[in-house]
Amino acid sequence: MNPSSTFRIAVLPGDGIGVEVMQPCIDVLEAAMRRVGNVALDYEWLEAGANTYRETGNALPKATFDACAKADAILLGAMGMPHIRYPDGTEIAPQLDLRFDLGLYAGVRPIRTIPGVPSLLASPRAEAIDFVIIRESTEGLFASRGKGVVTDDREARDTMVITRPVCERLFDFSFRLAEDRRGSGSGKGRVTCVDKANVFASFAFFRKIFDERAARFPDLAADHVYIDAMALSLVLKPWEFDVMVTENMFGDILSDLGAGLIGGMGYAPSADIGDEHAVFQPCHGSAPDIAGEGKANPTAMFQSAAMMLDWLGERHAAPSARAAARLITDAIDAAFADGRLRTCEFGGDADTAAVTRAILAAIDNDT
Amino acid sequence: MNPSSTFRIAVLPGDGIGVEVMQPCIDVLEAAMRRVGNVALDYEWLEAGANTYRETGNALPKATFDACAKADAILLGAMGMPHIRYPDGTEIAPQLDLRFDLGLYAGVRPIRTIPGVPSLLASPRAEAIDFVIIRESTEGLFASRGKGVVTDDREARDTMVITRPVCERLFDFSFRLAEDRRGSGSGKGRVTCVDKANVFASFAFFRKIFDERAARFPDLAADHVYIDAMALSLVLKPWEFDVMVTENMFGDILSDLGAGLIGGMGYAPSADIGDEHAVFQPCHGSAPDIAGEGKANPTAMFQSAAMMLDWLGERHAAPSARAAARLITDAIDAAFADGRLRTCEFGGDADTAAVTRAILAAIDNDT
Ligand SMILES: CC(C)[C@H](C(=O)O)[C@@H](O)C(=O)O
Ligand SMILES: CC(C)[C@H](C(=O)O)[C@@H](O)C(=O)O
Repeated sequence: MNPSSTFRIAVLPGDGIGVEVMQPCIDVLEAAMRRVGNVALDYEWLEAGANTYRETGNALPKATFDACAKADAILLGAMGMPHIRYPDGTEIAPQLDLRFDLGLYAGVRPIRTIPGVPSLLASPRAEAIDFVIIRESTEGLFASRGKGVVTDDREARDTMVITRPVCERLFDFSFRLAEDRRGSGSGKGRVTCVDKANVFASFAFFRKIFDERAARFPDLAADHVYIDAMALSLVLKPWEFDVMVTENMFGDILSDLGAGLIGGMGYAPSADIGDEHAVFQPCHGSAPDIAGEGKANPTAMFQSAAMMLDWLGERHAAPSARAAARLITDAIDAAFADGRLRTCEFGGDADTAAVTRAILAAIDNDT
Repeated sequence: MNPSSTFRIAVLPGDGIGVEVMQPCIDVLEAAMRRVGNVALDYEWLEAGANTYRETGNALPKATFDACAKADAILLGAMGMPHIRYPDGTEIAPQLDLRFDLGLYAGVRPIRTIPGVPSLLASPRAEAIDFVIIRESTEGLFASRGKGVVTDDREARDTMVITRPVCERLFDFSFRLAEDRRGSGSGKGRVTCVDKANVFASFAFFRKIFDERAARFPDLAADHVYIDAMALSLVLKPWEFDVMVTENMFGDILSDLGAGLIGGMGYAPSADIGDEHAVFQPCHGSAPDIAGEGKANPTAMFQSAAMMLDWLGERHAAPSARAAARLITDAIDAAFADGRLRTCEFGGDADTAAVTRAILAAIDNDT
């Protein structure tokens, strides 16, 4: 069959629970690859994050950045600690540096109900929630990070920037994803542009480029929803959406809202994807309130790792990697299916080790 | 007792369902004031909105603006129509002009469950949702309205502006509201600042001023939540919040999200309040999809009118106006209490007339 592929993975556990979910994640990756065969990962563990900043004065040391730039993919736990900050008071967030410096314009944040994980919504249709938010991740309001100006302690400004080249790649990425999803049977063949084009010139520009690119994908449906209306629709009828694409700040907000719908940050994976590089990390932060207790829900970390295998498999024509990704996703679904595995967010007693055991068992039992 | 007060109300029905809910609203106001006595309203009906723009080339004619500036309060239905736009493609939104030109910095958006109106959330605690979003309404990202720049069809920029004087008044307003709510038994004595101070200088500035003003209200709790975390918390535990205060764009998003939690825009009133003037209007838009059918839910319009009476009563030391406000609010609760009045958003057959009848009956039955 296909020859065996080995991929180099830069592993950045980071801070807090990021460290706690990383080794279980590698155990899950290894178990899945063992079942599938023909694919292997070479891990390089690297320092970055708030604790690294405290120890070295640098949140993302050059050696770490260089290793990330050379790796086939980057796996990240969580970074930042509320009490460790840059001198200007903002938080340690080297994941933002990676997005900017590696050009990871497409922040992919799938929101899917795992049957057996309680929904926060009353409607039984919440079981059908399955959409993907594409958050532009290199410009928008975040272009102003480190550049905002405060004048005379009287007035502050931050400027949002939208550029054509980034938008074109972002929208093409979104339409291609909608095609793939439809092909795999989970999508509706629809991309929704989320903006505030009724008020802002930059969002009218964003929408205009969206419409231009939509014309190249005539088989897909393309529509627009204002950000405020989308915040409402995600509560009222999230099951109606497929792929939605939006600006950086809006995507940050919508992806947390979306995570809430399907059980919270413990079930929300992400990928920040560029033309050459990609970072895979759970949407959750370092969670200092529960760090060190072994209680963190590792599911989003595992889901992010599955996204990594899928991306590697597609990019390098390695079907085994994609098969291992599917195995992990199916094992997660199987482990939660009967509703008895209750993680600590829901007051359950399934800690990191228990969730990992259940998912490992499901990988081994997959037939 | 107190002498009779008469207030001049500028009435701007606007477009679409705005027109349909306005006369019922005045019927409700009149019924409540009849019961209470000692307070009267003088209505001046005025033209503004998308249809006015189409007919006159001006969405907010000078005569309308002048009458609004002279009135004791402004009652607004809804404005804007998707197919009628300014030459630059943005929407007709004279409500934004009123906010800016009359200095209505505090956008007050209460989110409260009306028992009997179905919640979208699964938790029984959704019955206890009762918080208020204060959306700054004269600057923030909206300072860029009409000023965004697109260069060579390659790059677009909009600049967010945060100023100290507006923030100080905004935060003082929020803390005073939290005091009043605690006094009336419905609040927790807590104000939450919602920002993105971990990334942006302007939000760090916003938060710093919040902390300065919080120090003047030592009896109240003051805390901070990042906007993304708040979008999540509003799905997971909205019943925990009391007053939250945020920037214009963030407030726009959170208030629609909040409305979703308690049944949608048909139950979400608002007030835009400045030091001299105030506009009261439902959060919903002109809803062209159902306009003309008599189906619009008028509840948010009535709730907004109750907010107006309450504000007038407090400002002019007219307890009868406040009593009439309470009468309307109680009547709304009474009308929906048994769960049989189902508005069209929920597939029910309670149209504008039916909801109005039920609430008028409850006003007359109040003892
Ligand atoms: C930690 C924070 C700076 C970051 C962001 O705002 O992008 C986080 O919220 C995320 O969504 O990845
Ligand atoms: C109509 C629109 C411009 C307006 C806004 O964004 O402020 C509306 O959404 C609101 O919340 O009042």
